[in-house]
Amino acid sequence: MIAAKIFTFLENRKWQHAYSQYRKRYKLPASFLFGAHGTVIYGEGDFIAGECSYMNQAWIQIGKNLHVTFGRNCRVAHNVRIYTESMDADSDMDVDPWGNFEKRTKTGNVLIGDGVWIGANVFINPGVTIGSNAVIGANSVVTKDVAANSIVGGVPAKLIRQKMAY
Amino acid sequence: MIAAKIFTFLENRKWQHAYSQYRKRYKLPASFLFGAHGTVIYGEGDFIAGECSYMNQAWIQIGKNLHVTFGRNCRVAHNVRIYTESMDADSDMDVDPWGNFEKRTKTGNVLIGDGVWIGANVFINPGVTIGSNAVIGANSVVTKDVAANSIVGGVPAKLIRQKMAY
Amino acid sequence: MIAAKIFTFLENRKWQHAYSQYRKRYKLPASFLFGAHGTVIYGEGDFIAGECSYMNQAWIQIGKNLHVTFGRNCRVAHNVRIYTESMDADSDMDVDPWGNFEKRTKTGNVLIGDGVWIGANVFINPGVTIGSNAVIGANSVVTKDVAANSIVGGVPAKLIRQKMAY
Repeated sequence: MIAAKIFTFLENRKWQHAYSQYRKRYKLPASFLFGAHGTVIYGEGDFIAGECSYMNQAWIQIGKNLHVTFGRNCRVAHNVRIYTESMDADSDMDVDPWGNFEKRTKTGNVLIGDGVWIGANVFINPGVTIGSNAVIGANSVVTKDVAANSIVGGVPAKLIRQKMAY
Repeated sequence: MIAAKIFTFLENRKWQHAYSQYRKRYKLPASFLFGAHGTVIYGEGDFIAGECSYMNQAWIQIGKNLHVTFGRNCRVAHNVRIYTESMDADSDMDVDPWGNFEKRTKTGNVLIGDGVWIGANVFINPGVTIGSNAVIGANSVVTKDVAANSIVGGVPAKLIRQKMAY
Repeated sequence: MIAAKIFTFLENRKWQHAYSQYRKRYKLPASFLFGAHGTVIYGEGDFIAGECSYMNQAWIQIGKNLHVTFGRNCRVAHNVRIYTESMDADSDMDVDPWGNFEKRTKTGNVLIGDGVWIGANVFINPGVTIGSNAVIGANSVVTKDVAANSIVGGVPAKLIRQKMAY
């Protein structure tokens, strides 16, 4: 049990350190929260997040001169992946992947409004805008813009219905 | 290689300790097995599991006065998530998520029969019942009850076919 | 911050050691790359990979006398799972899973061509062949062979379209 405690102590410190680095680098509001472990934000671009948004085990890739922006009160579940750079699916990939990669990418900022809820295992493609108060169902792949107040789901994500007045 | 062994030793102890706590807290049968790492069961509710069920890297959320029940001989693959509490998708989420959360949830026990096989990356919503000997295909999202002896899959999960006699 | 550094040092060593073991055991080319953490290759079978392929956080199960083969210049994203052995979905699973398991499996080699791109969270079933330059969209489940130069996606994966000439 001592060994378990040592591991947990060190592991917590790793993530606390990473999160404190992200807070400084991206000037995150204090009310923005990270879940215990596993969120990774990488690349040379900028990450912007509003008050009270929450994120757990997300992987966010932000290329140079690009950004990922979250509004306030967003909730991001486990194993969500957001990319601002991806390969162009039509390119010939039977070439050295560490060669002329840049020529064959599609890139775009990801813009997420206020009060957006993103379910577990969701994958968000470069260039996507998600309107405020939208809901992205678990395990979905978002390939196109999502309108405000809509509920989408599936691979690829399609409109399920508009949210009802509550 | 010493460093690798130290890490692996400590990491194994972390999970052995967590699993032994779960065994005590939920009075699990000795024949119930956890995979090496990564299963997390949290919340104030109860987890009930029959003989010989197996679970690997599942995340199970069980709210107060709620329960998740597995029968015997169930097999749960990697990165399966089961929730007894979730937000109501129709609610206005552009409010402080740490505020009046309780008013906007949907909740329900999750009941899983005997000999159920749940594939990798499956997401199971609150209130779902899965009948005995059902199969849930990988990457599916279960939003409705699943009948015994049926094979379902997709986002959301739909009936693929009944199991054939073997 | 010292604790965070110790943890990261030990964790990196764990994966470096694992990857160096895989390199030796499977005689991988030096240009084959593993992402930082999380790829696991297990089972008694053989793993074969061409030059310049890349893999990040994949789980690959290879049963006795079976193999998983990757060509050159393949890219495998996060949380991809490849199995050469699985249960037969039609079998009666309400039996001790640690009993006569072998009788109820389906098995098959997984063959992946050159320049194949496999997205995050993809699940690949036993016996599948994926042709060169194919693209498998994120969160897909591959249950059937995929033709060369095609783009597939969904649960289960279906043809989206052929790649356009670039």
